[in-house]
This record gives sequence, structure tokens and C-alpha cells, in this order.
Amino acid sequence: MGKKLTSRGEDYSKWYNELVVKAELAENSGVRGCMVIKPYGYAIWEKMQAQLDKMFKETGHENAYFPIFIPKSYLSKEASHVEGFAKECAVVTHYRLKNAEDGSGIVVDEDAKLEEELIVRPTSETIIWDTYRKWIQSYRDLPLLINQWANVVRWEMRTRLFLRTTEFLWQEGHTAHATKAEAIAEAQQMMHIYAEFAEEFMGMPVIKGTKTESERFAGAEDTYCIEALMQDGKALQAGTSHFLGQNFAKAFDVKFATKEGGQEYVWATSWGVSTRLMGALVMTHSDDNGLVLPPKLAPIQVVIVPIYKGMEELETISQTVRPLVGDLRAKGISVKYDDRDTHKPGFKFNEYELKGVPIRLAVGPRDLLNGTYELARRDTLQKESVRAQDVVSRVSSLLDEIQVNLYSKALDHRERHITEVDSYDEFKRLVEEKGGFFLAHWDGSPETEERIKEETKATIRCIPLSGERQLGSCMVTGRPSAQRVLFAKAY
Amino acid sequence: MGKKLTSRGEDYSKWYNELVVKAELAENSGVRGCMVIKPYGYAIWEKMQAQLDKMFKETGHENAYFPIFIPKSYLSKEASHVEGFAKECAVVTHYRLKNAEDGSGIVVDEDAKLEEELIVRPTSETIIWDTYRKWIQSYRDLPLLINQWANVVRWEMRTRLFLRTTEFLWQEGHTAHATKAEAIAEAQQMMHIYAEFAEEFMGMPVIKGTKTESERFAGAEDTYCIEALMQDGKALQAGTSHFLGQNFAKAFDVKFATKEGGQEYVWATSWGVSTRLMGALVMTHSDDNGLVLPPKLAPIQVVIVPIYKGMEELETISQTVRPLVGDLRAKGISVKYDDRDTHKPGFKFNEYELKGVPIRLAVGPRDLLNGTYELARRDTLQKESVRAQDVVSRVSSLLDEIQVNLYSKALDHRERHITEVDSYDEFKRLVEEKGGFFLAHWDGSPETEERIKEETKATIRCIPLSGERQLGSCMVTGRPSAQRVLFAKAY
Repeated sequence: MGKKLTSRGEDYSKWYNELVVKAELAENSGVRGCMVIKPYGYAIWEKMQAQLDKMFKETGHENAYFPIFIPKSYLSKEASHVEGFAKECAVVTHYRLKNAEDGSGIVVDEDAKLEEELIVRPTSETIIWDTYRKWIQSYRDLPLLINQWANVVRWEMRTRLFLRTTEFLWQEGHTAHATKAEAIAEAQQMMHIYAEFAEEFMGMPVIKGTKTESERFAGAEDTYCIEALMQDGKALQAGTSHFLGQNFAKAFDVKFATKEGGQEYVWATSWGVSTRLMGALVMTHSDDNGLVLPPKLAPIQVVIVPIYKGMEELETISQTVRPLVGDLRAKGISVKYDDRDTHKPGFKFNEYELKGVPIRLAVGPRDLLNGTYELARRDTLQKESVRAQDVVSRVSSLLDEIQVNLYSKALDHRERHITEVDSYDEFKRLVEEKGGFFLAHWDGSPETEERIKEETKATIRCIPLSGERQLGSCMVTGRPSAQRVLFAKAY
Repeated sequence: MGKKLTSRGEDYSKWYNELVVKAELAENSGVRGCMVIKPYGYAIWEKMQAQLDKMFKETGHENAYFPIFIPKSYLSKEASHVEGFAKECAVVTHYRLKNAEDGSGIVVDEDAKLEEELIVRPTSETIIWDTYRKWIQSYRDLPLLINQWANVVRWEMRTRLFLRTTEFLWQEGHTAHATKAEAIAEAQQMMHIYAEFAEEFMGMPVIKGTKTESERFAGAEDTYCIEALMQDGKALQAGTSHFLGQNFAKAFDVKFATKEGGQEYVWATSWGVSTRLMGALVMTHSDDNGLVLPPKLAPIQVVIVPIYKGMEELETISQTVRPLVGDLRAKGISVKYDDRDTHKPGFKFNEYELKGVPIRLAVGPRDLLNGTYELARRDTLQKESVRAQDVVSRVSSLLDEIQVNLYSKALDHRERHITEVDSYDEFKRLVEEKGGFFLAHWDGSPETEERIKEETKATIRCIPLSGERQLGSCMVTGRPSAQRVLFAKAY
């Protein structure tokens, strides 16, 4: 474990970086901007994947896999897409290395230069729509509902574990539809699925909305998003779902024969969430003692630590614990019995606290005599004594309780940090002093949006979908506004 | 569907290529040598992944994720490894594109040249052992049992869907151990797990053995493998597990403090199977009518096709079928009820035959009257009439029966194609005339191995683990041999 974690109050950013490493979620690699996701972090990601994959399949999506490389010319086909994605990317120019003639090692073989450079995918719209041209001929082939789990690369200058890395893992859905209405409904459906996942599984409340034109995905006609608020008052975009119109169908010439016998361009959506959610999870619930994980995503939901002197006492304790482990597992609860004799109980307590295990049970000789376990919950750090015969039911209900409690706490924090403001001066002051989300009127112009961003570093996170359409006047220009939009400084 | 599949007898290789595409498993992409894995093919791969992942976790392995890029200098650190892998690979040299000054499109930005080239991983030993140096200090950190599911790239000149593609999907296990014996036991364990998976889930019999020095993995001290025989008499290496000795520990300076207080280099293994298994699956069981899938890996185990005229009749049939679908699903059987009214039953029959669905149930108005279903099994193409009340139990037992039957058929084929030969002339003749595996004596020298390869194109697939240690003399040189080794032409 080593020395204590920096506290959030002291330096939130440092706390985050330290925690991700100390809790063994991820670490930086020898490759600039690329992370290693460690087994404990990856186990959480696997739980996220399994749940999302289930939700995608339940709504009729199938998984497939498309090439990691995108020929340079593909990227150029959709004009706004290339502006957004072609610039900072990993470019493969050669396909061979050779021994240097001077014996100094291996060097690029200049004879093995590619005729056309390949880009390591920053996102897959272009390669996928190039493929869909072959798959879609008729309205019978639609809708096409496909998702891909993959790695992508964007050459980021400043990187942070999970939040912004050169390579990251994600899923990207790419669907094709016969009508505009159906494509919009799909894009909205996926935003709702992301929101449901964030709230029910991550315990992270989100605000659903649409992006302004300047924050839209490159190539989209509309971008739906979910926005979460971190403990430090900064917003984090947790997922996006794009209505792509017919832009990619036109760029890649994907038409279909309609029922009526005509030929029309196909309507498209794409949507994705990434390992960035891991960062969001950490920053939503964790505290100065370490990670706090929602039970539904915790790789270990319950840890049992024996307190003993000598192997004989350990064996006595283990005889009581083993059936309990079986009983908990039978309930679908993931349990670890940590009977390692290389580490002391205090060390183990710290380790599981740091790693955010929702419930810890400790049992020593006195507990055996009393027929009890000491139960500690990670979210509140409260302890209680539980009778042995009640452990399974108590743990079972407490896991649900912790899941709900984490969501409530996060929701409460967010509600306390959504501020309605009407004057730009107040906005500027509160963005600095209080942070969080701000609901304010905006005149709808990119110029005003840009000015606010330059002067305050706050951006429009979204135009919220819920909330009354309250007429007003822009806090900056005084021009009319149809509804308040959501501002924040963001990750 | 389109025109009929080329038969195996006519052209096995063409049959394979056509089948993979027509059954919608995969297709070539616009990127040279890279395939698109289509939803049906990916669904089979997901079943393979799920089962293998379960077997890995049951034996104590955890998943993690390491960067896709490997700095050029890492590859050079293990001398024999670089010879094997650094040559044909995708090299990233730049990290930015820009608009061409002449307005002709986007071009590589020469100002964004990387100081050190990055290689898209062909395998991850080097980046992983560079990381393990930080993770391993003491015997307490061992064993380290890690697996990664990932994409890798090897710049192949001649590619074939699934069998040899520039990019492919795989898992790569990388373990670290305190002792040589433990590492060897791990490498052997994984070979046995691969064999169990191949035989029990893929229905594909395999021969376990070790590779000769010249066929070993670049950087390994011993390579364990499983070898399968395809229907055309060619062998396919289906999985390998390597004992890496201390080669990578020495190259990356990974030492651990022993219990006794000393410092020693760590012992290593690595092991992998890939989407190549998809090709092996196709070539083991399929026939001239299309795919034949073992029930344990079939995305759809049972398809139900209604035979009807008019929507009213369909609705009557559906009322009977729906509860059956529920009953089958309750038994954990994956069922598709194909009530599409855009396609005729005959079309559907062909489609599911081509896609290898193990059991097809058809039901029309006369079946309703008789209280029966027409059941057709894909492996033997036999049909039978089953009483409605017996369908669930019949389907359930038949799925097991088909699984066993496919394995038996494949085993029978292989047994008929393992030939013991003692003379090199006979060997040369039978390699051409009969094909299959050959058990023959070999003098153990790379020179003889190379000569046989040059003269016959047959290679030593493995030195089998089972089989008696029968002394003999090399079929080529007459020099002494300790046991027969396994030869074949191979994919």
C-alpha cells in the first residue's frame, strides 16, 4: 500500500491519479499516453461490458468486428468528419523493419512503404460505411443494428488515466435505417440506455440532452449525450449517441431500394461509451480512503477477513467461514475469503478499503464464541455486529442498500451543484467560487458560446431534454432564448 | 443465398472461401488482408471466448489490457524474438495528418514524425515483460497469471479469411513464475485446456505435442501445441503454449526476491488461440451444403420455421410455437422462431442449412392437426416426426447427440488418416496420394527436417506427447530415433 492517499480537498487531481494507481485500476505504460489496465480495473470494465452488452442485445443489436486500420482516403470522404478526426492520429506508413546495415539494431525498411497510409481507427464510421455499401441493397436489409467492442487511438497531447488516453477501449454502435424518424429514435434510445446504465449500475446520475452545433460529433446532425457531475464540480461527458443523417451514406454511396421501388440514401446513427466511464466511476463515489464501488460493478462484493493467531485458530475460523462463502455465492454474491498468512488483518482492511469492496466481514475467535461477524460497509464506513445466521440476508439487503445510497449521495451532490443564474457576472463569479452545473439562458449563437468558453472556460454541456421550455434572455447578450442550457467546466 | 456452393471434392479451398462468405461468417475488407467478422461469425467467436475465458478464470487467471503499440526498441531486446516478429509488421511513424498545401486532400504531416517508431503488436511479450518488471519484486508477487483478449497485426503477404489475416483477434496469456517446474507445468496445463476446449466444445480432435526447435515460437524454450486434421488431409495448428524460460525476464531485467533472500530471474510462459479457430471449426465439420456447427458453439441451436398460407394460418401456428420457444429457452437452448413473411420456407430451410443450425423444426397446418413437428438434424440431414409433447426432451437429447456425433465423425476421419510409415519413398508417395498425418521416425536434426520440408512440403507438426517411445531409425537418414514424430502438410 505504501503512504497515504492525497486527500481530495488537498488536490483533487492528484488524489484521482494516485487512487487509480494505488487501487490497481491502471497505470501508465512505457508507450506515451497509453495505459495498462490492471486486472482489478479490467474486472470492473468487464462488468460494465457485460451489462451494456446485455442491454444492447436486448434491444436487437448484434456484435461484429471491423478492421483496426482505415485507409487515409476513407477518412477524407466525409468532409466534417475528416476535420474532426484525421488530424491527431497514429499513421502506419511502412510494413516492415530490417536489421540496420551498421549493425545498430532494427530500422524501418524504406522499401516497404505503403502506397496509401493507414490510420489506426480513431472511430469506425468510415470503414463501417464502406462495408455497409455491400450489405445494404433493399429495405429488407434494414434496420442494420451493429455494435463493436474495440480499441481506438486518438493522439492526445495531454493524457490522464482513463479520462483521456491515446489508446482506449470502447464500444461503438453503428446502425442503418430506412427512415429519418427511425434513426432519430434509435439515437435517442441509446442515450436512454446509457443513462439507465449510468444511473442503475454505476450509481451515477446524469443529465440527458443534445449538444450544441459546435460540440457535436464531427459528421453528426445531432449529438445526444449524458452528462455527469464529478465531486470537484466539473462535468464529465459519459456517453454520446449521434444522429448522422445521410452524411455517411452519401459519402460512401449507400442506397437502398425502398418498398415502393425507389432508391434512397440510408439514415445512420453511431453511439459509444469508453473506458472513460472508469474515470467517471472513480470520481463519482470514491473518498479520501480510496475507491468506493457500487455493488453492481464491484468485482468483489464481500470480503471476509479472518483474525487469528496461529494456523490452528485459522483452521477453526475457516471451518465456519467456508459454508458461509458457499451460501453467499449461491445467492449470486461475489465473495473473497482472504486467508493469506503473508499479511496481517490491518493490512487487509486497508487494502480492501482502498479497493472499494462494498462489504467487509471480519471474524475472530471471540466472534466465533459469540456467533457473530463484524460487518463494515465501505460507503459509510459504519460497522455493525451481525449474528452468523443473519449474515446472508443482511449482506444481501445491504448490497442493494449501498447501491441505492451511492446513487442518492451522488444525486444529492449534483442537485446542490446545479445553479440557475441570470446574470453573466454572477455566472462568472459562481463558476469560479462554486463550480458545478449552471442553467442559464443563451442566445443560441456559436459566437456567444465561444465568448463564454474563452472568458470562463465553461462550455455548454448540453441542451437538456427535460425541464420546462422557459423563455428568457441570454445572460450575455440579452437576446431571446427558448430555454436554459447546461453549462459547466468539463473534463 | 445465390448460386450453389462449390463442392469440397471439386475445390476444397474454393469451397472454404465461399462458405465463409455465404454463411456470413466474415468477408474481406477494403483494407488489404484485414477481414470484417460479420455478426453470425462474431456470435460463434463470442461463444468460444466465453468458454475459454471461463476455463482460464477457473484456473486462476485474470484478464488485463496492455497497449497496442510497442516501441521499436522493446522488440529488439529479446534476440530470437525480434528475428521472428519484427520483420513483417505495421509501423507507425507519424502522429498527424494535415491538409495538403495544393488542396489535393490530406497528407502525412512530416513535422509530426515520432522519435521512435511504434509497432502495432504482433504479440505482446515485450510490452508485458517491460510492465512486469514494475509488478514483480518478491516471491509473494508470484505466480502472476494474466490473460489479454486483443487484436494483433502481422503483415502477411498471402491471407485467407480466419486462417491467416493481417489483423486477427486472439487471447494471449502471459504468466510469471518463481520456478522452472511451475512454469513448465503452467505451459502444459494451458495446452491441456486448449485440447479440452477443442475436443469438447469444437468437437475437433487434436494431437498434443511439442514443436521441434525450428518450429518453436521466437523466444521460447519449448512450444506445446495442439494439432488438428482438416477434411482435406491438411493439418492445422490450433493453439500453442510456450515455456519461455528466463529469456524475457533477462531481456527486461525482471528479478524477484526469493523466500530465501536471494535474487532470481522470473520464469515465463505465454499461450494463445485466435480467430484461426473459426477456420478450423468450419473445415472440421462442414459439408457441401454449408456449415455444420457443434451445438455447444452454435449461436442458434434450434430454428423453428412455420409453413403457412396467409396471416391467419401463421397466427394459428404461432400460438402453438410461442410456448414451445419459451419451454426450450427455459432449458437454456437458444431458439429462433423465424416467422418472417418476406421469405418462403424453402428459402429459410436453405439459409439455416447453409448456416449450420444443428436442429430445424418445421410446422404446418397438417402438423398442427397431427400434433407433431418435423425435425431435421443438420449433421446427418435426417428427418423425423416428433410429437409435440416430446419436442423439448427430443431436442435436448439430440443436441448432445449431435455434439458427440460430430466429434466421433471427425475422430474417425483423423484415425483413418494417420499413417505409420518407415520408408521415405512411401512417405513421399502417401503425402501426395493420401494426405493426413504421418507418424515416422526422424533423426532429430534440423537438416533432415528441412530436407523433408523442401522435398515434400510436409513439416513436423509435433513430437506427440502420448504414444509409446518406440525406438527406430530415421526414414531419411537411417540414423537412430527415439520416437515417431507427426508429419503433415499444414495450413
